[in-house]
Amino acid sequence: MGASEIRELLKVIEAPGVISFAGGIPDPALFPQAAVAEAYRHVLTATGPAALQYSVSDGDPELKSWVVRHMARLGVPCEPENILITSGSQQGLEFLGRLLISPGDAALVAAPTYLGALQAFSAYEPRYDALPTAETNRTATSYGERAPAFAYVVPEFANPSGETMDAAQRRDLLALARDLGTLVIEDSPYAELRFEGEAPPALLATDIAETGHIDRSRVAYCGSFSKIFTPGLRVGWICARADLIERLVLVKQASDLNAPRINQLVILRLAETLYAEQVAKARATYRVKRDAMLAALAAHMPAGARWTRPEGGMFIWLEVDGDFDAKAMLPDAVEAGVAYVPGSAFHHDGAGRNAMRLSYSLPDPATIETGVKRLAALISENIGGGRVRA
Amino acid sequence: MGASEIRELLKVIEAPGVISFAGGIPDPALFPQAAVAEAYRHVLTATGPAALQYSVSDGDPELKSWVVRHMARLGVPCEPENILITSGSQQGLEFLGRLLISPGDAALVAAPTYLGALQAFSAYEPRYDALPTAETNRTATSYGERAPAFAYVVPEFANPSGETMDAAQRRDLLALARDLGTLVIEDSPYAELRFEGEAPPALLATDIAETGHIDRSRVAYCGSFSKIFTPGLRVGWICARADLIERLVLVKQASDLNAPRINQLVILRLAETLYAEQVAKARATYRVKRDAMLAALAAHMPAGARWTRPEGGMFIWLEVDGDFDAKAMLPDAVEAGVAYVPGSAFHHDGAGRNAMRLSYSLPDPATIETGVKRLAALISENIGGGRVRA
Repeated sequence: MGASEIRELLKVIEAPGVISFAGGIPDPALFPQAAVAEAYRHVLTATGPAALQYSVSDGDPELKSWVVRHMARLGVPCEPENILITSGSQQGLEFLGRLLISPGDAALVAAPTYLGALQAFSAYEPRYDALPTAETNRTATSYGERAPAFAYVVPEFANPSGETMDAAQRRDLLALARDLGTLVIEDSPYAELRFEGEAPPALLATDIAETGHIDRSRVAYCGSFSKIFTPGLRVGWICARADLIERLVLVKQASDLNAPRINQLVILRLAETLYAEQVAKARATYRVKRDAMLAALAAHMPAGARWTRPEGGMFIWLEVDGDFDAKAMLPDAVEAGVAYVPGSAFHHDGAGRNAMRLSYSLPDPATIETGVKRLAALISENIGGGRVRA
Repeated sequence: MGASEIRELLKVIEAPGVISFAGGIPDPALFPQAAVAEAYRHVLTATGPAALQYSVSDGDPELKSWVVRHMARLGVPCEPENILITSGSQQGLEFLGRLLISPGDAALVAAPTYLGALQAFSAYEPRYDALPTAETNRTATSYGERAPAFAYVVPEFANPSGETMDAAQRRDLLALARDLGTLVIEDSPYAELRFEGEAPPALLATDIAETGHIDRSRVAYCGSFSKIFTPGLRVGWICARADLIERLVLVKQASDLNAPRINQLVILRLAETLYAEQVAKARATYRVKRDAMLAALAAHMPAGARWTRPEGGMFIWLEVDGDFDAKAMLPDAVEAGVAYVPGSAFHHDGAGRNAMRLSYSLPDPATIETGVKRLAALISENIGGGRVRA
C-alpha cells in the first residue's frame, strides 16, 4: 500500500457521516489556541525582526537548552551539541534515513510499524528486516557481514499497535544493537501520553547508563512537540551523540537551512509556561477516549476479534482471526459510516491483511461507541463468511 | 570549501566592529513586523485550530491559488497541480536533487553558483559540470550517453555574481536542455528585486510558449517569499509539470509531512495585502545600497579590480587580476574591519580564488562606503605583493 493509495483512502474516509478511527492525529480541541496567539505576539515584540530572519541550522539555542533540561528529566544527561531541532520528528526520521542507509542495507523495523517511517526510509532503498522477537529467536549472526543501517522502534504506545516495549525487549534490543554494531532509532512522540502504569526508562537513558556517556551511545532519540501542543508548527528534535548531530546539522542546512525561528520561539514559550498543564490535559482527554473504545470493543466485538490495550497514546490494533481482509472490507465500512486504516499499510511486506489500526484521538466517547458498534456489526458479517472479498 | 568551513568563517565575520558584506540575507528593517503580528492574530482567529493541525503535503489550497495567479503574472499559465509549497526554496532544490540525481550523474551548474545549491545536491553524489558558455562552445554531444540530471541556474541577479542571463543565453540553455533531454532548475528568489532595465521572461514562461503547455515543459521554477517578506517563516514553492510535482509531493510527505500551515496562511495574508508595497519598498532600499557600493568601488578600488553591475538583487562579484587569493586575505580583512565570502566557496572545483562575493543588503550606505574603503586599501596592498599568503 503506497503513500498515494493511503492518501486516496483518507479522502474517502473524510466523507460526511463517516466516523473516522483512521486519522491518528491530535484532537484539535486540545490545541492551546489562545496561548499560541499570545506567544506569537510576545515573540514578535520581545525578539523583533530577529525572529523573522534566517537562523542557525542546529536550532534556537534557548529551545535547545529547554530540550536539554527535558531530556535530563527523562534520564538522559546531555548538552546542546547533542540536540538538533527538526521540522517535526518526521524530518528527524528522514534525516537519519538519508545519513545512515546505503542502498541494500538492512533496516530493522517492527511489524507492524509507523507508515511514515517506511516512507521516510524507502527513498534510500533499504532492505527491510523484521526486528527479532522472542518467537523468531534470531541473533546477530543472522544479519550477515554488513551491519544493518539501524533498528527503528516506537517503544511507547507504538503507532500503530499501541503497545509498549517491556524491560526485557528493551534490554534485548540494546544488546542486539551492540552485537550488530548498529544504531537504534527511538521514535518517541507519544511517551508523555501515559494514562497509567509506570514509564520504562527511555532506550537512550538505559544505553547511557550502560555506556557512561551520550557520546558513546548507540541510540538516536526523536522527540516532538506535536502531540503535546500542536503539530502545525512542525517542531521536533533529535537527541544523540554529538558526532552524529554534527553531521545531521549539515543535512538540515542543506535541506531547508533552519526550522522557522519564530515557530521555535513560540514552542519555547509554550514549553516554559504550559508544558505540564498541557500534558495533564492531553492525558485526561485521551484516557477517556481510550476507555470508551476499549469498553465498546468489549461490548460489541464478536469472538475472533482481538485487540491491544494501550497504556497511553492514540492507537489500538485490532486483528480478526481466519480469512479476514481489512482492506477489502474498507469500502463497505465507509458505506456503513466507519473508517480505519488497514493493517497492511503498516507492514513493509504487505502483511497485516487481517488487522486494522483504530485511533480514538479525534471522536468523542459517544461517537466512538457508535463507530465501534458499526464496525463490530460489519466484522461479524465478514467473519460469517458471506461478504469477504478477495 | 565545505559547509562547516563557511560556518566557521561566518562566526569570525560577526565579530563586533566588522562591516560585513558576507551575509547575503535580507535587511531585517524591511520585515513587515506589525503586519506579520496582525496576520498571525488574524489567521488564528479566522481559521482556528485547523491552522494548527497537520495539513496537506502539497500546500494550503488558497496559498497555491495565489501562487498560480502570481505565476500567471510572470507569463506562466498553470494550475494548482503544478505547485508544491516548500519550506523555503532551499527545500525545493534539495527535493529536486534527491529526485533527479543518481550517483555519478552530471549536474550542470554555473561557475560561480549558489553555495546552498551545491550543498543540497552534493548529498546525492553528482559529477558537476560547468554549464556551457559561448566561450567553451560545448554541445550536447560532450555529455556522453547518460543525460545530465539537470542544469541549475539563478537567471536573475545571481547569487553570487549578481548577473542576469540575457535572451541569447536563455535561448541557448533551453535548446541545450531539449537536446540533452534534461531538466532546467530555474532558481529565482531575487527576480522581483529589479532596480532598472526590463525583466527578461522567466525560462519557464519561454519554455511554455515553445512547448505549448507547462506539463510538457523542461523547466522547474523555484520561488520564494523570503526576499520579499521574511525568510523566517520558510515558505517557498516549486512550479513545474504536474507529473514532477506529483512525485515531489510524495517527497515532501516523506520528508516533513507539510510546511507549517499557520505560516503558509500568514504568508498568504501578507501576499494578498502587501505584496506590491513590499516589493516596491525592497527595490528602493536595495537600489540605494547597490548604488552606494558601486560608487564606493569606483571611487576606491585600485586598477586590477573588476566587478559586476547588478540590475537588482543583493550581490556584486569582485575579481582581482594577478596572483590574488581572497580566502588567504580574509583574516587580514576581518582584522581591518571588513568581511566578504571568498569566491572559491561558490565553485564546485575550488576555482574563484581571485574573487569574492560582496553583498550590500545589510549595511547602510555610509557603512558600505567605509567598508569598501577598507577593502580597497587592503586589496591595493595585496596587489602590491607584500602580503599575499599561500
